[in-house]
Amino acid sequence: MATERGGALPRVVILGAGFGGLSAAKALRNAPCDVVVIDRRNYHLFQPLLYQVATAALSPAEIASPIRSILSRQKNARVLMARVTGVDAQRKLVNLERGRDEPFDYLIVATGARHAYFGHDDWAKSAPGLKKIEDATDIRRRILLAFERAETTDDADERKALLTFVVIGGGATGVEMAGAIAEVAHWALADEFRVIDPTQARVILVEAGPRLLPAFPADLAEHARKALEKLGVEVHLGRAVEHCDDNGIVYGGERLAARTIVWGAGVQASPAAKWLDVDKDRAGRVVVAKDLTAPGHAEIFVVGDTAAVLDGKGQPVPGIAPAAKQMGAYAARVIFARLAGSEPPGPFRYRHAGSLATIGRSAAIADFGWLKVTGWLAWWLWGIAHIYFLIDFRSRFIVAMQWFWSYLTFRRGARLITGTEADV
Amino acid sequence: MATERGGALPRVVILGAGFGGLSAAKALRNAPCDVVVIDRRNYHLFQPLLYQVATAALSPAEIASPIRSILSRQKNARVLMARVTGVDAQRKLVNLERGRDEPFDYLIVATGARHAYFGHDDWAKSAPGLKKIEDATDIRRRILLAFERAETTDDADERKALLTFVVIGGGATGVEMAGAIAEVAHWALADEFRVIDPTQARVILVEAGPRLLPAFPADLAEHARKALEKLGVEVHLGRAVEHCDDNGIVYGGERLAARTIVWGAGVQASPAAKWLDVDKDRAGRVVVAKDLTAPGHAEIFVVGDTAAVLDGKGQPVPGIAPAAKQMGAYAARVIFARLAGSEPPGPFRYRHAGSLATIGRSAAIADFGWLKVTGWLAWWLWGIAHIYFLIDFRSRFIVAMQWFWSYLTFRRGARLITGTEADV
Repeated sequence: MATERGGALPRVVILGAGFGGLSAAKALRNAPCDVVVIDRRNYHLFQPLLYQVATAALSPAEIASPIRSILSRQKNARVLMARVTGVDAQRKLVNLERGRDEPFDYLIVATGARHAYFGHDDWAKSAPGLKKIEDATDIRRRILLAFERAETTDDADERKALLTFVVIGGGATGVEMAGAIAEVAHWALADEFRVIDPTQARVILVEAGPRLLPAFPADLAEHARKALEKLGVEVHLGRAVEHCDDNGIVYGGERLAARTIVWGAGVQASPAAKWLDVDKDRAGRVVVAKDLTAPGHAEIFVVGDTAAVLDGKGQPVPGIAPAAKQMGAYAARVIFARLAGSEPPGPFRYRHAGSLATIGRSAAIADFGWLKVTGWLAWWLWGIAHIYFLIDFRSRFIVAMQWFWSYLTFRRGARLITGTEADV
Repeated sequence: MATERGGALPRVVILGAGFGGLSAAKALRNAPCDVVVIDRRNYHLFQPLLYQVATAALSPAEIASPIRSILSRQKNARVLMARVTGVDAQRKLVNLERGRDEPFDYLIVATGARHAYFGHDDWAKSAPGLKKIEDATDIRRRILLAFERAETTDDADERKALLTFVVIGGGATGVEMAGAIAEVAHWALADEFRVIDPTQARVILVEAGPRLLPAFPADLAEHARKALEKLGVEVHLGRAVEHCDDNGIVYGGERLAARTIVWGAGVQASPAAKWLDVDKDRAGRVVVAKDLTAPGHAEIFVVGDTAAVLDGKGQPVPGIAPAAKQMGAYAARVIFARLAGSEPPGPFRYRHAGSLATIGRSAAIADFGWLKVTGWLAWWLWGIAHIYFLIDFRSRFIVAMQWFWSYLTFRRGARLITGTEADV
């Protein structure tokens, strides 16, 4: 049993209330310990649908739930909204930006990942990525504002650049963003302008590798490429982006004038490896032991996008929500066993339930290993799965209604240009 | 018939797509003219429900609809997202911040009002008002962040100040804000904190005048005061606020420590009077003629919160949505008649349909002149009226669902702390 202080219960501190952190907290519901969940946000974000906020289909609150609400009935859980600045592994303290350090007996680090620019951080300003609510409303503003400005400009070149949308990166985020931007241009805005024709907008998806969606089988990825092209997206494979700025990109030696660029090309783990002073892989993830503990720290677990783990076949566990949930629940089981003095579970084993990606209206791909599905059936599977996994009943219902409405009308319900840039 | 340029139809330019501007645009649907609606936002905002965004009950997109969508089927209407910098009445041009001037034959100015600090503009930083979406998400952030910070602070005085919420101004905005903040503290957050007890939060409504809601009969205003006190709001009448800063307010010579202050005490019209170089009243509104034209400008109409108009009894027409709609539609009728060369309508006559204000769950007041209603019946009337007047079907449905869910669960669906301050 872990160190107790003055008869108090052992403290399990969880950093991050994403999929990994929350699933750990919930799995400790009946454990003989106090659980403290620390996040710099007051909400859990359903990141798989963030691109729908960026493309005006959903509102932020529809994919975000207050962490306090989620855990309000779990009596052994406390929620702290605070920014973590470091971990003192020796003294078992989490350092916070404001207020006291938080002591722990067990620590679960589930602080996720951020998009990365591979040494080109100056591209961030021109090519925002998509990880936070603010990223999504920023991208939404850029996309909608580009159409508005194209409508008012007299300069033909400027209009062309405003109506050129570039998405960098052919992973799931890039594919979903490109498809959704094309839908906005070709359907949602189609009849609403008098000078420009939004259906003439160019949407360009650039991927440095030879194919889209490396996590999917080649035939499904090819299906996705064709579905994107059917939506009017130009897919450029095998061309690395060499430069980004406010005027556009340079790729394959060629300049492309574009006012709106979205970055979906890479992620970098949170600084957990630095906090713990342990080895990390190229993406900054902590290389954890088979029980998900950090090397040399039997009481510190690292889960989700912050951890580098191999599955049974020696392949890296993907950075997706189900993987993070499994890791969080596993770390909680190990801690529970140690607290109870019972047999610890065997090494972490990732169970891949399947991969899903959506391209646009009635187009998606699904890979369950034993079964591959494309087209409208995959699209319905995708929709049902995402509604099912939304964390609260209200969100599920409201998102289902928004989608139903969009499906019937071809419109998008959250077309707001908000924030400082909107003060034009 | 107005001047035509090169065979083109006469141009009616409408500044502002609030209730007044949109109702004018729609009333010109079949008029022999081109209609240009200019707004610096891309959406029409249903301001009467803005306080529900500020108190986490609704999402911004649920009370905002893209102006282009609203007018997409009106073939003679064009929408321009641009900021107006002035009006050249002589040359009949509207000056825009970016791009060409917009020529007009007729102009309808419907640019609304902004909150005003009566010469204390430095109070704005500490006591934000509620007119824009960004105001609402800013106030929501302040309210929710105050509870989060109270939970983490060790300083008892600081905790007390964080849990003290001051609303300045006893008009409809102030009453609705105070009631809604009390509901957030006493119901929505009640069981979610472990250190503080949100139900102990103080909500204080300060009004300089002798009573609340001067637009309502005294007995209804008194009913509202009692309903607020039942919700736990402290109502302080007859005490003017002498100072506001980040530490709280000074009122009646007394200092009150509070970290969250909301301003609902006064409005100032948009700078239309300055643009047109005509007389304005104390609130900056253009004193218009009986046909709502600006003095000396037969082709320029001023409507809504930007216009000072008297009703049949010599009372000022109130700054509410139905009044703005009536003025917009009236100005359109005058223009239509002039374009058609037919008899112009008589002077503008305001028809007051009734006044509604809500205090909280199952509590509201309604005054129809011939009938006064209070309590749950008024609350249902208020809810049905507001859903009915929401501009699009999607919003109506989603808002109804959100309210229904909140009513059943006592929870609030949009409890997001977003924006720069959230990066704690």
